[in-house]
Amino acid sequence: MISLKSKLPWLLAPAAMISTAFGQEDEYKADYDALLADQVVDGVDYSYAFDFFTTSMLWTVIAAAMVFIMHLGFATLEAGLTQKKNTVNILFKNVWIISIGLLTYALIGFNTHYPGDNWQIKNIIGIGGPISELTDGAGNNSFGYGGMDLAMTAYGDFIFQAMFAATAATIVSGAVAERVKLGSFMIYSAILVAIGYTIAGSWHWGEGFLNKLGGGEKAFYDFAGSTVVHGFGGAAALAAVIILGPRKGKYTANGIKPILGHSMPLAAIGVFLLFFGWFGFNGGSVLSANPGPLGLVFTTTALAAAGGGVASIFTSMIVLRKPDLSMALNGLLAGLVSITAGADSVEPMQAIVMGIVGGIIVVFSILLFDKIKIDDPVGAISVHGVVGIWGTLAVAIFAPETANFVSQLIGVVSVYAFAFVFSFALFFIIKLVMGVRVSEEEEVEGLDVAEHGVPAYTD
Amino acid sequence: MISLKSKLPWLLAPAAMISTAFGQEDEYKADYDALLADQVVDGVDYSYAFDFFTTSMLWTVIAAAMVFIMHLGFATLEAGLTQKKNTVNILFKNVWIISIGLLTYALIGFNTHYPGDNWQIKNIIGIGGPISELTDGAGNNSFGYGGMDLAMTAYGDFIFQAMFAATAATIVSGAVAERVKLGSFMIYSAILVAIGYTIAGSWHWGEGFLNKLGGGEKAFYDFAGSTVVHGFGGAAALAAVIILGPRKGKYTANGIKPILGHSMPLAAIGVFLLFFGWFGFNGGSVLSANPGPLGLVFTTTALAAAGGGVASIFTSMIVLRKPDLSMALNGLLAGLVSITAGADSVEPMQAIVMGIVGGIIVVFSILLFDKIKIDDPVGAISVHGVVGIWGTLAVAIFAPETANFVSQLIGVVSVYAFAFVFSFALFFIIKLVMGVRVSEEEEVEGLDVAEHGVPAYTD
Amino acid sequence: MISLKSKLPWLLAPAAMISTAFGQEDEYKADYDALLADQVVDGVDYSYAFDFFTTSMLWTVIAAAMVFIMHLGFATLEAGLTQKKNTVNILFKNVWIISIGLLTYALIGFNTHYPGDNWQIKNIIGIGGPISELTDGAGNNSFGYGGMDLAMTAYGDFIFQAMFAATAATIVSGAVAERVKLGSFMIYSAILVAIGYTIAGSWHWGEGFLNKLGGGEKAFYDFAGSTVVHGFGGAAALAAVIILGPRKGKYTANGIKPILGHSMPLAAIGVFLLFFGWFGFNGGSVLSANPGPLGLVFTTTALAAAGGGVASIFTSMIVLRKPDLSMALNGLLAGLVSITAGADSVEPMQAIVMGIVGGIIVVFSILLFDKIKIDDPVGAISVHGVVGIWGTLAVAIFAPETANFVSQLIGVVSVYAFAFVFSFALFFIIKLVMGVRVSEEEEVEGLDVAEHGVPAYTD
Repeated sequence: MISLKSKLPWLLAPAAMISTAFGQEDEYKADYDALLADQVVDGVDYSYAFDFFTTSMLWTVIAAAMVFIMHLGFATLEAGLTQKKNTVNILFKNVWIISIGLLTYALIGFNTHYPGDNWQIKNIIGIGGPISELTDGAGNNSFGYGGMDLAMTAYGDFIFQAMFAATAATIVSGAVAERVKLGSFMIYSAILVAIGYTIAGSWHWGEGFLNKLGGGEKAFYDFAGSTVVHGFGGAAALAAVIILGPRKGKYTANGIKPILGHSMPLAAIGVFLLFFGWFGFNGGSVLSANPGPLGLVFTTTALAAAGGGVASIFTSMIVLRKPDLSMALNGLLAGLVSITAGADSVEPMQAIVMGIVGGIIVVFSILLFDKIKIDDPVGAISVHGVVGIWGTLAVAIFAPETANFVSQLIGVVSVYAFAFVFSFALFFIIKLVMGVRVSEEEEVEGLDVAEHGVPAYTD
Repeated sequence: MISLKSKLPWLLAPAAMISTAFGQEDEYKADYDALLADQVVDGVDYSYAFDFFTTSMLWTVIAAAMVFIMHLGFATLEAGLTQKKNTVNILFKNVWIISIGLLTYALIGFNTHYPGDNWQIKNIIGIGGPISELTDGAGNNSFGYGGMDLAMTAYGDFIFQAMFAATAATIVSGAVAERVKLGSFMIYSAILVAIGYTIAGSWHWGEGFLNKLGGGEKAFYDFAGSTVVHGFGGAAALAAVIILGPRKGKYTANGIKPILGHSMPLAAIGVFLLFFGWFGFNGGSVLSANPGPLGLVFTTTALAAAGGGVASIFTSMIVLRKPDLSMALNGLLAGLVSITAGADSVEPMQAIVMGIVGGIIVVFSILLFDKIKIDDPVGAISVHGVVGIWGTLAVAIFAPETANFVSQLIGVVSVYAFAFVFSFALFFIIKLVMGVRVSEEEEVEGLDVAEHGVPAYTD
Repeated sequence: MISLKSKLPWLLAPAAMISTAFGQEDEYKADYDALLADQVVDGVDYSYAFDFFTTSMLWTVIAAAMVFIMHLGFATLEAGLTQKKNTVNILFKNVWIISIGLLTYALIGFNTHYPGDNWQIKNIIGIGGPISELTDGAGNNSFGYGGMDLAMTAYGDFIFQAMFAATAATIVSGAVAERVKLGSFMIYSAILVAIGYTIAGSWHWGEGFLNKLGGGEKAFYDFAGSTVVHGFGGAAALAAVIILGPRKGKYTANGIKPILGHSMPLAAIGVFLLFFGWFGFNGGSVLSANPGPLGLVFTTTALAAAGGGVASIFTSMIVLRKPDLSMALNGLLAGLVSITAGADSVEPMQAIVMGIVGGIIVVFSILLFDKIKIDDPVGAISVHGVVGIWGTLAVAIFAPETANFVSQLIGVVSVYAFAFVFSFALFFIIKLVMGVRVSEEEEVEGLDVAEHGVPAYTD
């Protein structure tokens, strides 16, 4: 397809090099011979298995780094879409979330997320301990942990999943921005990510009850987490926002007063970084470097995002009568959430349609929540929560051989209900104990100076 | 060279693990044995081929993600180098371009870019259909698509090339910034990327006439697209800017009035992200993970950029009598464009020289275009168009065994002429139908409020 | 652990594809057979070695790109934590450093860093020449360069190390910000990175005397460079700051007057990008894609950062009585520096403790330097210099089987002393020749307008 003749000498060169390079062939050969001998067990050459595993594990850790950068994406998106006076506060919360998210996931989260046989309530709750219990085993060098199906070491599995874990709390962070009390949010987010997210996740990814529907024949299907990550975060955010109430001055007697974001470049940086990181989020969920699904997942992920972006652009042009940048940005994210549950199961053209529907839904959802006075400064409930439902159900619609509609519905209802109730109860208790909202004066002054003592910008 | 003795136990451990991990050796062995059996065809062990393919395909999708992030680089660079009042507009255009670029590339672009045998005009025009026609085949799992020469699946090929496609339109976006009508640009950019770019690309990468020069013996050589991507974008931008005219107040009776960019940090973020993404742009163009060319391409790419940066710094110090940051930033990009056509074909020291020349050219080119009143707010025509010529010809100068000077010239002339004419005609028709320039009042007010109804920044 | 049954058909498909795809089996088979034949030397199949090498080399270049992006991290962090009026200057210096750092590393640095047998003073100084002397060899295609222990080509080794080299100078850039003369800093940084950094590095990574302590039995251990990169930069920065003196108005008769950073979003972008890049910095230092150490290094790196972030948050809350964002950000970095020397040698829980200690140290260190009137606008001396000592010694404390405490101390003392003296002498000579500090008027006006003639932001 592409002319590569000029490259062939390179391509054919390597093997010949073995015996000629620097005249050191004997020394090198001894090295390789030792390694090659290690690949043979009971007379069978396992080098293929080891190579596939090595490449796959490399992809896992790179994908983990890409998911990590989504946290910068969330931080800048949230900061950009809110007021200048609350910027330090938002950035601080995001430093907190990634830090405490990684720590709690090591101390309790991972083993709660994947309980193995250690359920306290069979297939529903399996609170676990620190990862050292797991990682002390032999699974950290090679095949011993997941084999070829989960082609990574125990540490690889941990670090990739740890990067996901903090995401749920980050979604809430955006929705409660500009009026939540810092200390209260710090406690809330730590517990949400350590216990709430991991329990819900265990139902699906930890071989819990959602994975056992229909005796396992009709298991709930959520490839990279439309429901289990994004839906969980969106539903938790809704509960928190209901308890917290809207920002002062947003819903007035004279109607809704839009509160503009203070920096659209920051918001755009955030969305593009999220888009970039999503390739790791979805692509890494292949759980190996298997070329077939990897190529498909990258393609469906990108096309769904594009469909979402274009759909939001036109929907906002029609509905709002202007080309709205924040809607366009949320459209890209909506497309990404739309494909997250089924990225490995649909065709490219189906991915485009899924993204387009997500991009339309998100515009109406954001307008609707504003109408019912649910004040979500960044649209997180719509992007992650509402579109997450669509993405999850869409797998059953577009790929019925992969997912069962009823099972998808059961998954959505149970995860969303749990997230809502857990978040509501937790945030409510914190409200009773120490309050969750800053004073009216602090809100007017801005959280940066009120809570942190410094502004985000100086002249 | 580096002491690794302490790591040897790790290195030698894996194979031994196979039979010891968790005492599950038999279960795992059965797994691997099945996989290994699959790698043997007619008694020959193909695991090497599959492994090389797997690693190569992984690189392709990672490179695609890196090229994607170049779109954030373009967005922030363009926003940073223009006025505050047009920032939302620029960001919006970039969301549009990446979205519509991906969609049109799936719907028509890819199969136009690589027509195979489906030319309407032999080796010149081969408009194609949606990718599903291609990707329905067996090429999406393994070797069936490109083999070891194009070591990726059909989806891998698509997503990598799709990220390139939108680039051409993005280059134009910067040059026409601050006065182009949004709707007109949306239509223009969609057609440019869907049809214009892909036709020109098919001449070289789609096995068209540029690849057949001298009966294929003297094929035009453009490794990653100095001419086919950057030159195309630069020449198209020139045509659009000529039709559009300069920004109000730039060229006055009292001489040139510089219009400063509103945020140099945004501009710097843009250039560094472009530099980062260029490792995927050039490195991914190796089309496999072949260690030899991969190391060379990363090295020449980085060194040419460095040469360009240093050359622009000193050139601007001498010519402008001050160390100019925007020139330094454009110098890095000029170095990158300089090496893009020959990154796999020159030595490191040659790469430095190529970058230095590019870095000098770009300063004089930007000054020259200003002198002849071609108003390009971000210097895109110089960076991508003018330096693209240098980069393409430089391959023949520094690596005559790879490229023929006359062929390089034919390639430059035909692609640049086509891009210019296509862009001119398209933009001219749009001008006749709906206009291409905002009103003078809108330009003064800024496109953010005039076209989008909101400012990019609030206090 | 994770249900993958639905993916098994993909996983098992590839091999079967070989003989069925598009009916082109014979053509493809011939291709592969030729390649496979090339992997056999003297009757032994070397494909495993080549595959491991290919995957490892891919990781090396990706890691190099990730370390590259740390330079954007440094640029934005430094810009964010300083005043608006010096932003162009800081960005310009960072363009300079990455450019000149790459060039000098190619022209002299690499071969000074790794002298092989070409020492002028045995195991202490081995100034070398351009990389072409090295890269002309056969080491650029395959095993010939480093074999399986240093699984990369010569170019891979070069580009990865080149990205490290400029880091030392960048650390100084932050500490001397807002008052250093541009031309003086340009000369200083070029020499520091070309000669100073590479000599110190050769003692450890170039098989110099630190690698020979105790006859090699008690070699200094610094996995990815807590001392050799970060400590070097921090100690050099301290010397430069002492010569330069504090910013005007910082230390007054009425006490310390804090000079706030002008953009906390820029600072946060910087730190998150540094965190992201550190996965390449530490992960790439595995020097291969060996799954065991790779997973461990990613895990310890992330957990130490998280420990540092949380520790700084609570320390700042207690000591400063407010949740300080810049301390939180520096806490993440302190955690990363803390783990850099031992990322491959400690357990996850140890990594957390190491990060926590680093995060506590950095807060007190920053306060202490302010108390003794060492003015470091970004806290670079504390983050990289002081915490670098902790990170280096911590390996001996937590992993005594890997590192010897006395050797670690010898390493720290010799590298820090050399860096301090080299930097002091160099900067002092430059001060005598051309001065190192801008005039008081220029400092008040800001370096952007004074040195570069333009502001970083316009309205």
